[in-house]
Parts: sequence; C-alpha cells; structure tokens
Amino acid sequence: MGKRVITIGREFGSGGRTIGRQVAKELGIEFYDKDIIRNVVKETGFTQKYVEQYGEYAPSADQFAYSFVGLDDRTSPIMLLWEAEQKVIRQFAEEKSCVIVGSAADYILRDRDDCLRVFLYADEETKEKRIAELYGAISLKEKNRVHDMDVRRGLNYKYFTGQEWGKAQNYDLALNRGTLGIDRCVELIVEAAK
Amino acid sequence: MGKRVITIGREFGSGGRTIGRQVAKELGIEFYDKDIIRNVVKETGFTQKYVEQYGEYAPSADQFAYSFVGLDDRTSPIMLLWEAEQKVIRQFAEEKSCVIVGSAADYILRDRDDCLRVFLYADEETKEKRIAELYGAISLKEKNRVHDMDVRRGLNYKYFTGQEWGKAQNYDLALNRGTLGIDRCVELIVEAAK
Repeated sequence: MGKRVITIGREFGSGGRTIGRQVAKELGIEFYDKDIIRNVVKETGFTQKYVEQYGEYAPSADQFAYSFVGLDDRTSPIMLLWEAEQKVIRQFAEEKSCVIVGSAADYILRDRDDCLRVFLYADEETKEKRIAELYGAISLKEKNRVHDMDVRRGLNYKYFTGQEWGKAQNYDLALNRGTLGIDRCVELIVEAAK
Repeated sequence: MGKRVITIGREFGSGGRTIGRQVAKELGIEFYDKDIIRNVVKETGFTQKYVEQYGEYAPSADQFAYSFVGLDDRTSPIMLLWEAEQKVIRQFAEEKSCVIVGSAADYILRDRDDCLRVFLYADEETKEKRIAELYGAISLKEKNRVHDMDVRRGLNYKYFTGQEWGKAQNYDLALNRGTLGIDRCVELIVEAAK
C-alpha cells in the first residue's frame, strides 16, 4: 500500500464515518474515530462531553469571530484540547496504518508523505437524508443544525490551522458523496491509497 | 459507462489537458479542448486570439473588480463570448460522449445527470515544473504569471457562474495532481465515470 495513513475530513451528514470504516476494512488497517475522543479525555482530564463538543466545533457559529476571543492564551482549555488532539493523532499515525476521521488530522499530519488526505462533502439534501436515517425524521430546526455544525467545524478548522475547511487544494482527493454514492467513494479512496 | 460527459476544470499547469486526453482515450470517447475555441471563433466571428485571451480569463487580475465594470451589458463582447461558449459546450455534450477541458463546462452542464465534474489542482512547485517542461525554463516573471493565470481564471469563473472556482463542493471529484500524479488521476477519473 502506498499510503499508510488516510485522513478523512467531512461535512456533517456526508457519511464520513461509514466510508472511513469501510475503507479501513478493505485495506485491513485500523479505523480511528471515537478513539480520538477517548484518548484526548485520558490525556487532558476533560469530560467526554467537553471533548465532543469543542474538539471539532467552534463554541458558537452565531457569535462567529467572538467565539475565539482570548483563546490564543496557550493555557486556555481550548488550546489544551487542541494540543492533546495533535498529540493523540500523531501517535495513532506513528503506531499503525490507519484511517482517521475528523479532527483536522489532514493538517496535523501535513508533513507526512505517507498520508492520503481526503475530504468528503455532499449537497444539503443528501446530508439531511443521511442524518434522518441515523437519528430519525429531521425537523426544520435540525436542518439548521446540520448547516450550523458545518459552519462550526469550518470555524474551528480555520482557527487552528489557518486554512479554509473543505478547500480542495488542502487535500489529495475531494469526493462528492452525494453524486458518487458511498460505495464509489470507498472504491476511489482505496484505489488512491494503493 | 455511467457518465457520458466528463468536465475537467484545472489550475494552470496542473496537467488537465494531458489527463483529459488520456481519460478520453481509455474510455474511447471524444476529447474537446481547443475545439471549443475553434467553434466559438466560428460562432462569434471574434479572432482566435481574442477568444483564447478572454474565453477563460478575466481581462486583468491586477485591476480585480474593475475588470468587469460595464460587462453586464448583454451586448458587450465578453457577454457574447460567454453566450457562444455555453452554446458550443452544450452542443458538444448533446452530440457525443466526451471529455471537455476548461471553460466553466462544469457550470454550463450543471443540470445534466450524466456529467462527471472534475477539478484538478496542484501545489505551486508541481505547476511550475510542468510549465517549464512544456515551455522551457521558467523565470521569476513567469512564476508570477502562473499565479496570475489562476487568479484570472478564478475571477472569470466567479463572474459568470457566481460560484467559487476550485471549491470542492462544486465538483464530483477534486484531485491533487501534485501528490497523486498524472496516471493515478487518470485511473481515478475513469473509475469514477464508470
């Protein structure tokens, strides 16, 4: 296999976890997703809820720029969280061939030549349908939440990496899960990793 | 084959023409590139040089917003050019299975379900190397030109389509030709089109 580590950034509801798990299975390598959260909890002593809420998401999309005021203090909880995330992800990549979903892993592992950086996205309809499948019927409020989750992921990514989230140029491969479908996305990622 | 038409948007120097030609060959379908320019020349009566210069490029990256002042007049030459480009590309897509490189074809054919929309990009080093291979050693002035060409393509695309050029979400598949290489890009496009 040409690439030892595959990072998957993804829009909320684009099926990143399902696709990532399937890619890992086909290539016979580890799959890390919730494991990142678990290890960051161990590393920092923060609660799981705190890590889940702030590990990938800006505190609030409504407040936009204000969300991050004061956060450049390196001892702030959010900065400690980011440091721990980087440490955990680097360790995972070091230890075994693996697929890592989320958490700006593409950026954290940007200096590794053995890393394939994938971004998955989809149209709003596909994402809403997916979320309804996973969590039941989706209300208008939840539709807004889907969009809000992506805005918060984007803000968070931008803050810590200085890069635009979802900009093709930051990845090796960006796939539209809406038009290509899950199985085709898995095939293409496996093919690109070879 | 699942997709009859493959559009390839690409950064200057990312090897879009080479990749597009190879994809067309492997799938046994038509390849359109300079043909678009030729047909637009016939359609409009503009010179080939004019069509080449303004078909895909904003008049000037330096002047930025000023480049388009007055262009929303539907009888302006640039608008006539855009209308002709749309007509030619729609005709190509209607007639035969094909690969179309450049000219915002992804946007022009956005309502077709049988169309695979690809974007190719690369890091600056790869693009400069490619241009040097094609046109000889590259000077600092030419390096700036490479960047300038992409800025002008981006401005042009944005003006006529209202979309961001190179934003992954506008495509089915976005590939980093720098890290994946030409052959792998060809393989992945062929695979995705099946």
